[in-house]
Amino acid sequence: MPLLSVGLTPAFERIHSTAIAFQCVALFLQMNLFMILLLLLCTSRVFGEIADRMKLPSLIGELVAGILLGFLAIRLNTHFFRDLCHEESFLAVTDLGIFFLMLLGGTELRVRELAKVSREAVVIAITGMILPLASGFLLGWAIIPESDFKFPQCLFLGTAMSVTAVPASIRVFMDLGKLHTPSGQTIVSAAFIDDLMSLIVLTVLAGILTTGGLPDAASIAMLGLNITIFFVIVLIIKKAVIPKVRGIVKKFHSEEFPFSSLLIAGFAFAALAEALQLHFIVGAFTAGLFFEKEFTGKKTFRRVKKRLNTLTLGFMAPIFFASIGLHLDLGALVVMPMMVLLLVGVAFVSKILGAGLAARAMGHSGWNSLEIGVGMSSRGAIELVIANIALRAGLFDHPQPVPPVVEYMFSAIVIMAVVTTVLTPIALKFIIRGEENGKKLHNGVTETQN
Amino acid sequence: MPLLSVGLTPAFERIHSTAIAFQCVALFLQMNLFMILLLLLCTSRVFGEIADRMKLPSLIGELVAGILLGFLAIRLNTHFFRDLCHEESFLAVTDLGIFFLMLLGGTELRVRELAKVSREAVVIAITGMILPLASGFLLGWAIIPESDFKFPQCLFLGTAMSVTAVPASIRVFMDLGKLHTPSGQTIVSAAFIDDLMSLIVLTVLAGILTTGGLPDAASIAMLGLNITIFFVIVLIIKKAVIPKVRGIVKKFHSEEFPFSSLLIAGFAFAALAEALQLHFIVGAFTAGLFFEKEFTGKKTFRRVKKRLNTLTLGFMAPIFFASIGLHLDLGALVVMPMMVLLLVGVAFVSKILGAGLAARAMGHSGWNSLEIGVGMSSRGAIELVIANIALRAGLFDHPQPVPPVVEYMFSAIVIMAVVTTVLTPIALKFIIRGEENGKKLHNGVTETQN
Repeated sequence: MPLLSVGLTPAFERIHSTAIAFQCVALFLQMNLFMILLLLLCTSRVFGEIADRMKLPSLIGELVAGILLGFLAIRLNTHFFRDLCHEESFLAVTDLGIFFLMLLGGTELRVRELAKVSREAVVIAITGMILPLASGFLLGWAIIPESDFKFPQCLFLGTAMSVTAVPASIRVFMDLGKLHTPSGQTIVSAAFIDDLMSLIVLTVLAGILTTGGLPDAASIAMLGLNITIFFVIVLIIKKAVIPKVRGIVKKFHSEEFPFSSLLIAGFAFAALAEALQLHFIVGAFTAGLFFEKEFTGKKTFRRVKKRLNTLTLGFMAPIFFASIGLHLDLGALVVMPMMVLLLVGVAFVSKILGAGLAARAMGHSGWNSLEIGVGMSSRGAIELVIANIALRAGLFDHPQPVPPVVEYMFSAIVIMAVVTTVLTPIALKFIIRGEENGKKLHNGVTETQN
Repeated sequence: MPLLSVGLTPAFERIHSTAIAFQCVALFLQMNLFMILLLLLCTSRVFGEIADRMKLPSLIGELVAGILLGFLAIRLNTHFFRDLCHEESFLAVTDLGIFFLMLLGGTELRVRELAKVSREAVVIAITGMILPLASGFLLGWAIIPESDFKFPQCLFLGTAMSVTAVPASIRVFMDLGKLHTPSGQTIVSAAFIDDLMSLIVLTVLAGILTTGGLPDAASIAMLGLNITIFFVIVLIIKKAVIPKVRGIVKKFHSEEFPFSSLLIAGFAFAALAEALQLHFIVGAFTAGLFFEKEFTGKKTFRRVKKRLNTLTLGFMAPIFFASIGLHLDLGALVVMPMMVLLLVGVAFVSKILGAGLAARAMGHSGWNSLEIGVGMSSRGAIELVIANIALRAGLFDHPQPVPPVVEYMFSAIVIMAVVTTVLTPIALKFIIRGEENGKKLHNGVTETQN
């Protein structure tokens, strides 16, 4: 009987009073893929729901679930979960999770709307990306000890600082009925550009991580060539192949064919990206971009989108976020509280200044500029994907012996992502209300004066 | 560049004229998970569609796709695909494929209809299962060489003979508007019982395969005990836990929660089954059984069912069936044509006699009995799951050196499954038409006589 044969650790024996509750966990010590999936999916959905009720993004709850499971596992048996997390079969499932997240992310952008984006939004997006990228890189240069891996580690910090995930901010604007104000519209457009630029920065980072170590001029040139080849092939497929395939796909009888086609396109682009030594997420995201209402027809688009949503948000994403939580070591908060604070601070300040000052320079009011800057501070899921890629690539294992700054960098970045994602919508609400109160006060003063 | 660095085999160099077409395949020689998924999903969906247009079950096309890919791979580089098929990450994906197939299979049975099934259908189902089981076992006893593994190998043959998959037959009855005739109704009911009994036989076989080798009395008793414990726990959950959880689940906001709940139940039962040393498919199928319209409400049931259908039939099942095709060695047809013929013959005859004679004895007409017997001959997906489990358990690797009968048994059984699945609906159509012509002729004669 597995329940009895489990070797209990001293740590376990200490906690006699809660022994029964822990027996359930002990059963899972003899875990297989299904048990891991069960545990992760179950806890992450419950905590995701709790987060949702607290009006937080559900990914926060899903991360907390993973952190909790990781903490429990460490109490029971230190390296147990970590070993499991390195099992091929589990990595395959989290890889699929990342794949589906990026595919879904791609389908949510409408490329055709790119033409409508104002020059203003482009400027805000670019400065809102470059300033955090530079700040992150320079911060890394200051705090990371000298080694062959310092450059990619700094680049990772910069990339992690530069991404933007605005769904939460967009929801705040919608909730308050402010989506069609100038700042609301600017954020939506700028976020769109930022998503595309994040993809490019990510491609470069992942390329450098894949080659490993400090890149020389030749490998950077090779990377640039591969990125170009990828996008040229992809554009040829988009212009020449897809319109022809479209007719064929429509002739297929099977009801599930449109969904399969999206997956096939995703796998194909992911495989192409990997063949060109780029990361597969680039392919998955690009395939999602190509999946458009105009191409499939509204009905099919809505049907496939619903299924992709369910599969991703109901199965793959919670497991991925919880697996990130498993890796998170809250020890970072104890050992290096200043580094964590510094990262969070730089993340907020650089984004608010980068996007906000540009908005002010383009003629937005002070309040609106602040709204834009804060609204773009949230890092969200894409940053977790980046952190995961860096972790898997072994970026935090060098140099030996690993200096604490590097050892806790993954956890610090995940904490930064969580904090920015949680605080952004809350701060945004305060600012929008503050602006309204200010206006009311001003109007009130004006009325009294009249 | 991966395209150039591939080591070309002599076999490859011989086929100069089709070199360009093969370059694409050669690219995939440096495969990763996404490339395998792409290749399998793409070809299996295309061949599935072709099969569908030929009015064959799409799983046939999906198998053919796998066979073709396996054949191509062998032409290029013999052990290449086989090595890949043993990779952990690929096995994890096919495991998920089996999991979803069994979960879907469970949701398609309505346990509440069990009460309505006639005593007649029960008898037909039981004899239609026992005769093939016995025939398969005895056939194995006659042709498999003596060894420690002879008993489980014979049991595997018997189990493979005994399963029934009637969706194709039901479609034939529906197409011809005959579903509500006595033979149509009997087949639907008997198939339902057979599915449940297949599950039990399969549980026993998988249990024996897990312990490995010749089972002694103690391990069989242990297996019986574990099966009992599993179903007792499951019934307690069904009666006591689920009604309570139901209220909680309904309170959850997330739109994807019902889908996640089904998956959580599936993973939980799968994990429970594995903890009791049973195969996870037992848990997945049982979880599917519990997912009922009466429990979730019609709207949620339909929504979750649609998503499960798409995920299973549009992604997981094609990949699983194609992966079965990859393992299929058509050499079996050349080396042991008689064994393959014998298996197919015994499969048809034992099912037709087992179910048909019982039907005749219960008072069905000769034509109706033949329809029932033939209609239940199709083996379909569940047999492929069984064959896959046996293959993974290493049942066909013993004794060393492997005798040809054992070496080709997997392929022979898959061929048997394909042939019975393809021929059953065709034969059924002929029989139903023959019956109608007979009736017309008879009526014509009667009319002339009048």
